[in-house]
Amino acid sequence: MRGLFLDGRALSYRSDLPVPSLEPGWALVRVERAGICSTDLQLAAGLYDFHGIPGHEFVGIVERVAGTIEEETKWSGQRVVGEINIACGRCDLCLRELGKHCRQRLVLGIREHHGAFAELLTLPLVNLHRVPPELDADTAVLTEPLAAVFDILDKVEFQPATTVAIVGDGRLAQLAARVLLGQVETVAVLGRYPDKLNRLPAGSRGFLEPPAGMIHACDVVVECSGSAAGLGSALELVRPGGKVILKSTHREPLPLPTEAIVVNEITLLGSRCGNFPRALKFLCDLAGSGQKKDQDLSNLVDAHFKIEEGLAAFQHARHKSHIKTVLSMD
Amino acid sequence: MRGLFLDGRALSYRSDLPVPSLEPGWALVRVERAGICSTDLQLAAGLYDFHGIPGHEFVGIVERVAGTIEEETKWSGQRVVGEINIACGRCDLCLRELGKHCRQRLVLGIREHHGAFAELLTLPLVNLHRVPPELDADTAVLTEPLAAVFDILDKVEFQPATTVAIVGDGRLAQLAARVLLGQVETVAVLGRYPDKLNRLPAGSRGFLEPPAGMIHACDVVVECSGSAAGLGSALELVRPGGKVILKSTHREPLPLPTEAIVVNEITLLGSRCGNFPRALKFLCDLAGSGQKKDQDLSNLVDAHFKIEEGLAAFQHARHKSHIKTVLSMD
Repeated sequence: MRGLFLDGRALSYRSDLPVPSLEPGWALVRVERAGICSTDLQLAAGLYDFHGIPGHEFVGIVERVAGTIEEETKWSGQRVVGEINIACGRCDLCLRELGKHCRQRLVLGIREHHGAFAELLTLPLVNLHRVPPELDADTAVLTEPLAAVFDILDKVEFQPATTVAIVGDGRLAQLAARVLLGQVETVAVLGRYPDKLNRLPAGSRGFLEPPAGMIHACDVVVECSGSAAGLGSALELVRPGGKVILKSTHREPLPLPTEAIVVNEITLLGSRCGNFPRALKFLCDLAGSGQKKDQDLSNLVDAHFKIEEGLAAFQHARHKSHIKTVLSMD
Repeated sequence: MRGLFLDGRALSYRSDLPVPSLEPGWALVRVERAGICSTDLQLAAGLYDFHGIPGHEFVGIVERVAGTIEEETKWSGQRVVGEINIACGRCDLCLRELGKHCRQRLVLGIREHHGAFAELLTLPLVNLHRVPPELDADTAVLTEPLAAVFDILDKVEFQPATTVAIVGDGRLAQLAARVLLGQVETVAVLGRYPDKLNRLPAGSRGFLEPPAGMIHACDVVVECSGSAAGLGSALELVRPGGKVILKSTHREPLPLPTEAIVVNEITLLGSRCGNFPRALKFLCDLAGSGQKKDQDLSNLVDAHFKIEEGLAAFQHARHKSHIKTVLSMD
């Protein structure tokens, strides 16, 4: 089959990739669209020494099911998105319903399991979520990063008057602004690129420099800049007793001012993957409402590339001024 | 009056300190006992450039009240302990009931207000808590650090089966072990000094090295080692999805592995001062119960010094093998 293959840091397009084999309880999914995210760029830069097909944001059609007749009837031919953590179901964390932290987990396109930048992928049936018919593939491909944003709502409670700042103006920041505008009256976004700040939804305010009134004044700050300076900016914005959600990862440790953390009683919350049903419901509500200017996602996908042009797609996704690059397999 | 005076990093005993003057709504308190804590040692090392009388853990008798007749009747002659943050009552944080984070706060013996290592101190009446008659001064002097430990219970929910580790074996760690044993079945303490680990209460287990089974296995880790290595140890012990309470401050930033924080969704919570009534209730319950071996505090105070021997007391408190040094003013 056709797809992209990463050998450490050498990414190549190949047309001779073997079709993955199916285990009982798993599905073979024909990928329609797959999004490139920062983790993919880090993988391609060799940061995680991944060998295999990358890609973990996808939408596709279930082509084959290795399961019971009921499972086959339920899933065959369905358009699906899929959770990326493949849990063992037996370790101490799985037994405590912390499957996304399973100690032996495989992760789609990230850890020891081939991913979505190819014609076909496999996932356990328990990882799949049906895409409601009102969502097209170009919208549904945003489910995974959107779910990662919804994890913020599982970790922090928001009131309409909660003052929220987002550090970053890229993929996750744009989604976070739209999700959080469903919770609070206004969202401030501290970015670096005027072009990206211009794509923020109505109801949010973009800044290249934080105004004095924002310093140590925000109840909640979401750090998803992808930059090493982002943590420092977040700590400059959060108020005493406030919370910082960390979304950006860095290979090198970042300096943490423990004195400020302790004296000002700041809470730092690491956040990774999130709730797919909640993200799908958000997308459906949006599709149903026709126009919701403060949450519109239509301007986030910059470019579509065919899988054969995958290397060019990665080049495009690396541009700091771009937001979301999508590969299509058809 | 007699007391200790800190001039940047020069600590001296003086017998000619002026008696502090009283403002309306404040009390003059005759100090009976005052405890030396790590912050005092940091102050005396010049880390905060404090000029004044240090000391913030105290018990004393209200000598004079500048207030209404009702206030005078209520407080005069009472044995009290006192909260250390003196809030303005007018800033945005005070108006949100976040007085301990008041932007203009004074802090007893720490920031722009003379403290407890002297015969007399002043505090606003709203900062005072009456000491119940069943508590003697030597017990009540532990209220402030104990309240700081109780703040952990305001930030994290514990179940009996919650696995808890404490990093550190000093003052705060010893108190934390006793408080947390009232919440969970067992507490593991990772320390450096066998002498101190031997003073842990029944029900806790002390370790100089963490056993393999503790690595990335603890639901909650309390970091109160006072050592720069403590954060790393805490992150080695906490399980994915777990929480680290930060109690230790360091002037220099510590390296934070954001990748582990994000991927493993660790929560870091800075924690400073806490709930005095809850601490006093704990001490009263303990006094009432006669013996509660798992929470006994009687072996924590190593030494009493008279205020005239204050410099020797600081020398004593600096010894790594000692736990709590108390000054008495009589």
